[in-house]
Amino acid sequence: MSNSGTKDEIPQKKMRMDQSNINSHESDILESLQGFKVEKILNENAQTKTMFVHGKFENSEDNAVVIVEKTAFSEKSIRGVLSGDTTMKNTLKNDIYGTYEVYPKPEFNEIKTTVIYPATEKHIAKYTGQPVYMVQETPELYSDITLPYLNAENFSIQWVYNILEKKKESERIIYEDSHPETGFILLPDMKWDQKQTDNLYLIAICHKRGIKSLRDLNSSHLPLLRNILTRGKKAIKDTFDVDGSQLRIYIHYQPSYYHFHVHFTHLKFDAPGSNAGRAHLLSDVIDNIELRNDFYQKKTLNFILRENEGLFKKFQESGKVLDSFS
Amino acid sequence: MSNSGTKDEIPQKKMRMDQSNINSHESDILESLQGFKVEKILNENAQTKTMFVHGKFENSEDNAVVIVEKTAFSEKSIRGVLSGDTTMKNTLKNDIYGTYEVYPKPEFNEIKTTVIYPATEKHIAKYTGQPVYMVQETPELYSDITLPYLNAENFSIQWVYNILEKKKESERIIYEDSHPETGFILLPDMKWDQKQTDNLYLIAICHKRGIKSLRDLNSSHLPLLRNILTRGKKAIKDTFDVDGSQLRIYIHYQPSYYHFHVHFTHLKFDAPGSNAGRAHLLSDVIDNIELRNDFYQKKTLNFILRENEGLFKKFQESGKVLDSFS
Repeated sequence: MSNSGTKDEIPQKKMRMDQSNINSHESDILESLQGFKVEKILNENAQTKTMFVHGKFENSEDNAVVIVEKTAFSEKSIRGVLSGDTTMKNTLKNDIYGTYEVYPKPEFNEIKTTVIYPATEKHIAKYTGQPVYMVQETPELYSDITLPYLNAENFSIQWVYNILEKKKESERIIYEDSHPETGFILLPDMKWDQKQTDNLYLIAICHKRGIKSLRDLNSSHLPLLRNILTRGKKAIKDTFDVDGSQLRIYIHYQPSYYHFHVHFTHLKFDAPGSNAGRAHLLSDVIDNIELRNDFYQKKTLNFILRENEGLFKKFQESGKVLDSFS
Repeated sequence: MSNSGTKDEIPQKKMRMDQSNINSHESDILESLQGFKVEKILNENAQTKTMFVHGKFENSEDNAVVIVEKTAFSEKSIRGVLSGDTTMKNTLKNDIYGTYEVYPKPEFNEIKTTVIYPATEKHIAKYTGQPVYMVQETPELYSDITLPYLNAENFSIQWVYNILEKKKESERIIYEDSHPETGFILLPDMKWDQKQTDNLYLIAICHKRGIKSLRDLNSSHLPLLRNILTRGKKAIKDTFDVDGSQLRIYIHYQPSYYHFHVHFTHLKFDAPGSNAGRAHLLSDVIDNIELRNDFYQKKTLNFILRENEGLFKKFQESGKVLDSFS
């Protein structure tokens, strides 16, 4: 199940693994939503017009999670919306400007709905909105809190090694530079349907192991970083005819998995996680390391954590999250 | 007219002034969209479910620009959507997961529509989607292209001085520190309706004149920058009870007007322009200048320009935009 279009990005790889742990419990195709009872709104996103709802069907004690998302207009649907079939109500009029509430015929105004039923407590937790916080990680907080947490958790990245070793997803590879120090594999992110380039999204995963994140980068990695930047852009130009000047090329901090990788997205696509506070442009990273070898070991790094994340709890315990104004 | 929810941010202040130049041409409140003919889709945003359409009404030669935007779900509307009144069509079924196209009754599935009629060529140009490009501005390109362009254009910022001198919008001021060197005025951005704090958006405008942008900042500005960071957060905590850890605090480069100001938005709100490639966290800016006095004079800065912007044309003429792969 893709969760694209939601603000709280959920790593696709983790979800894939989560699903294998769920006891298979086949349910029927729904004919209608007659008798569905909304229990709680778990989360909502007013920008993408999405809502995550916990509810129950009549005569059942099982939980359901329903994700409803308004669909984008198409050339076809817009003609149906802007037609005599639509009723409208004026809400404001000022000179040449008017605003209206309009109610098109249902066939032109589709909603995409995902039903998870029966849903486990884990599903409900996954889709429940969480407060988020901006954390300021000084070099000291990195070594005192973040690094011990990463080492203790020892997150599995076997799925990354499966890709690098061509055990999985080899048919999806767009480009490979096999050099062990500066090489990488470029492949489409699972969030991209590859139908159009407006929302192009690819990931470059480096062959070299042991680079956990931005924090580890220094001038010894400049050949790797420059290679990913140059050859990644060229491969995307060659394969998808999208110029490098049309791309946002960035690194996440914190990343969702601790093996070094770079995101390539189309400038037209506001990908989740492309905001200041998570995304660091690769060309800025190269510049900063050129300026100072230990830039990312000395820099205070800001990033956003959700309240239910393990790392957030560690920062919270240390009292290093909330601002205090004395 | 607010243009919130669209990807291409249009500065509110500029729009306000544009409107005063339009010849008043009152039109009637529309009763229906019967006979409306779509001429061209000017722009669309699949994430926010918005479309900008150029069209004509039957028996009229005048142009109309129609902005249609699907509305967010509300607690009330979601109960209407997830009910027996809704028809649904299954599109995928895998174990406990199912996806459906659903068609609720029109009353639960409103669309917000703005009609500009009659519309000028300027309106049509304003809403027409433009290709965007990532530009890499080295210090040399700044002095050779950007700075001469800014000086030649000599953009008016009288409206900013009106605010600082309390000639306009003084009733909107949330907080003021009147110090001429380190002081600032904090007020809500016009994009924020102030109804809820989830999309909180304020602007701090400094009293000191002559700081055009990020490029001008050096260690002499650290007291100003630290003051805006600390007192801005405190004023927002005091007034809106939103903690500093809940805020994204950043500077735009390029800014939309060349008088130094800082954006304060809620982390839950993906404000337009908060992406890497435009937004620079204020705390990063302070850190970088502490690291090196001339950081922003020496740094290559990446930013996104639309093809119809004057500055873009200057970069294009110099041949400094498109990547070349030889």
